[in-house]
Amino acid sequence: MTSARLAPVLDRIDADLDAALDRLMTLLRIPSISTDPAFADKCDAAADWLVDDLASIGVDATKRPTPGHPMVIGHVDGPGRHLMFYGHYDVQPVDPLDLWHRDPFDPEIQDTPKGRVIRGRGSSDDKGQLMTFVEACRAWKAVHGSLPAKITFFFEGEEESGSPSLVPFLKEHTDELAAELALICDTGLFDEETPAVTTMLRGLLGEEIVIRGPDMDLHSGMYGGPARNPIRVLAGIIAALHDDEGRVTVPGFYDGVPELSNELRAQWEDLGFDADAFLGDVGLSVPAGEAGRSALEMIWSRPTCEVNGITGGYTGDGFKTVLPSEARAKISFRLVGQQDPLAIRESFRKMVQDMLPADCSVDFHPHGASPASVMSTDDPAFEAARQALSEEWPRPAAFIGSGGSIPIAGYFKDILGIDSMLIGFGREDDLIHSPNEKYSLDSFHRGMRSWARILDTLAAED
Amino acid sequence: MTSARLAPVLDRIDADLDAALDRLMTLLRIPSISTDPAFADKCDAAADWLVDDLASIGVDATKRPTPGHPMVIGHVDGPGRHLMFYGHYDVQPVDPLDLWHRDPFDPEIQDTPKGRVIRGRGSSDDKGQLMTFVEACRAWKAVHGSLPAKITFFFEGEEESGSPSLVPFLKEHTDELAAELALICDTGLFDEETPAVTTMLRGLLGEEIVIRGPDMDLHSGMYGGPARNPIRVLAGIIAALHDDEGRVTVPGFYDGVPELSNELRAQWEDLGFDADAFLGDVGLSVPAGEAGRSALEMIWSRPTCEVNGITGGYTGDGFKTVLPSEARAKISFRLVGQQDPLAIRESFRKMVQDMLPADCSVDFHPHGASPASVMSTDDPAFEAARQALSEEWPRPAAFIGSGGSIPIAGYFKDILGIDSMLIGFGREDDLIHSPNEKYSLDSFHRGMRSWARILDTLAAED
Repeated sequence: MTSARLAPVLDRIDADLDAALDRLMTLLRIPSISTDPAFADKCDAAADWLVDDLASIGVDATKRPTPGHPMVIGHVDGPGRHLMFYGHYDVQPVDPLDLWHRDPFDPEIQDTPKGRVIRGRGSSDDKGQLMTFVEACRAWKAVHGSLPAKITFFFEGEEESGSPSLVPFLKEHTDELAAELALICDTGLFDEETPAVTTMLRGLLGEEIVIRGPDMDLHSGMYGGPARNPIRVLAGIIAALHDDEGRVTVPGFYDGVPELSNELRAQWEDLGFDADAFLGDVGLSVPAGEAGRSALEMIWSRPTCEVNGITGGYTGDGFKTVLPSEARAKISFRLVGQQDPLAIRESFRKMVQDMLPADCSVDFHPHGASPASVMSTDDPAFEAARQALSEEWPRPAAFIGSGGSIPIAGYFKDILGIDSMLIGFGREDDLIHSPNEKYSLDSFHRGMRSWARILDTLAAED
Repeated sequence: MTSARLAPVLDRIDADLDAALDRLMTLLRIPSISTDPAFADKCDAAADWLVDDLASIGVDATKRPTPGHPMVIGHVDGPGRHLMFYGHYDVQPVDPLDLWHRDPFDPEIQDTPKGRVIRGRGSSDDKGQLMTFVEACRAWKAVHGSLPAKITFFFEGEEESGSPSLVPFLKEHTDELAAELALICDTGLFDEETPAVTTMLRGLLGEEIVIRGPDMDLHSGMYGGPARNPIRVLAGIIAALHDDEGRVTVPGFYDGVPELSNELRAQWEDLGFDADAFLGDVGLSVPAGEAGRSALEMIWSRPTCEVNGITGGYTGDGFKTVLPSEARAKISFRLVGQQDPLAIRESFRKMVQDMLPADCSVDFHPHGASPASVMSTDDPAFEAARQALSEEWPRPAAFIGSGGSIPIAGYFKDILGIDSMLIGFGREDDLIHSPNEKYSLDSFHRGMRSWARILDTLAAED
């Protein structure tokens, strides 16, 4: 059902597509690589361009300095729910340049077997996505003379370089950035026909452990037998972190891990996720992990414990019969629901300490401890957005999880106190962070129309 | 009991000590570093010096070319058992030179709190040791006009650079090098007062295993849960290689592992080995390894399985949440008695294969497979040599084991078919392979006298 006020906005988007593409191309030509200081003035130029573009649709936009690259903030008043829209204007570096088929900052529209695409650095991540929202607002403003909601635009220029200025900036501007709901456009479709609202993001707890035994590396002929070998101690600890059912054995680990609601389980089953293809693409055939859980459930809604790196002793070519004085592993936990990262860290450390044999010690080096982000989907805005997306795309939208962590949603929750709807139109083959990045023209076009629909429904709802 | 023919030889050794030292000093001044091609002519010069020195005591000595540095072979006829004496004239490099307190090739006699020492590269390893035997023969010849046994001298010039020419040379000269017993002087005392005959050398089996899972490194957010992690698989395999009693679980591993004879056990107990000090020196306090076995027993006469190196995933600074496509470990087994390295390799590989979960494969890379060397101490020559040593030194000699491998003894057994008596007078603080190498004057002096006693008893015995 398309409302009377929405239909002309969608028509306007269709009619204005070429001009919208021209605007995106202009933004893509600015090489706003945030990690390389040589491109600082280009980041600044991209921020200036966005300020001007927002101003052109009546937004009160300004560039805000930070110790790094500037933020762009824009405000526009309106009726209804106060929304905050987030995107980032900085892009990844382009190395290795010789793998690009054309200048990464000379974008063009190309025909491909899977449809037309916009080729160029930042086309998908995140300038193209960011502009879907701006263009939806432009069309609405052109048709109706004003926007249907109060909107705060918030564009960052350091997302690809670890967002060093983000948290301090949020803390200093909590009042200005206050809103009722955040819209984040930096994710992807579930598949080419199926849009999604990401509502569950796994948290991440990292620990490096260093097991120490003898004071120095020993010769395994001289000491092999009576001397404690830290590699063997470490292997024993790692082997003990899971039981035979693939469950993590750290005491209390599953406290706060919810079971899926029947509703969500049904949505996920409808997605027709092809676990065989997912695993087959990387040379695997059988889901490892917890017995009795589907691959999709494990990635989106179950916690994990994994070893991301291990080293000890002689690791070069050939062989040295050394008994090393230490061995180390990087271990990470993906967290869901209400799992408490700090409680799990403490329990993990105690478990490791308790397993140490005589003459061994352990050092722990923490690497991050962020809880899962779980959005309150009982807010009717989520279901409304899901319905709006379902009307635009060939297949119905779903509330999905994300196996990885997207820190921005956690910051908005913790610092600003607002939930986020993560909605994006990227595709698996967009080559973000790689040479020859592209964004599908279909994603750009339907993305603009999707935001118009969402603005309509969220504004109508109040 | 000193025999009538031995006493004047010992007196002659005492009287000739200064001249013997002068000769050793001359040999030590030749920088015969075998690993560095720049010193090839010096290795040649050391070989020439030895040929001349052997000739001066009536030995028919020649320098023999090899693809590397030459061998020196000398023959002298005599009554009694045919002995072959092995030593090496090449020395370790001297880096780092700035840690030496004087020119490594300008040796001198120094007074130290632990007695007089000969300071210089090669003084202990192995020129000083080699010359103890030559000087014993010189004294015997001077007193009696001939030697008491048929002796083949065999000096190598590549021991410190992996002995690349040794095995081919032995194979080409099996007839010429045939003897009834080999004497190898390249080992140490048990302690400063206690000499030893090394009769058991552990063998060594090395295997590198590579566990492979997914085709490529994966992101642990995207795949953590259903994807198989090769580090965890490898850790599980390593943890399963030992049982709770510290015994190796590879099927058939203990086949051919003998229990100590009561006689040898008593000798070892008499040595008063200080396990607390041995472990304490390297920061350990409690013997790990097999339950119910002493530290000395474990090092000398029990087999082991150790992990010498492990690597997988991200091992640099910081943290990357990667699920690696592979993980690898270098695993070695020290072998004793009649353990069959090839049978153990096969059983180990089968055990690892059997433990692999779905979607994992393993590659094995062999690194050496040498059985233990166990001398036939029921040959009365061994007990006779032990008694002879016991008469020279403050405390009785023992048949001991060596936790490490000394390949030369295995080559003599395999290629020439003869057992070896490993007798040497090095001390733990000789700094072999390090700056400021020394040899105790006491070791040099008693070493010469020890060989005279051993020649006397071995020649008398037949």
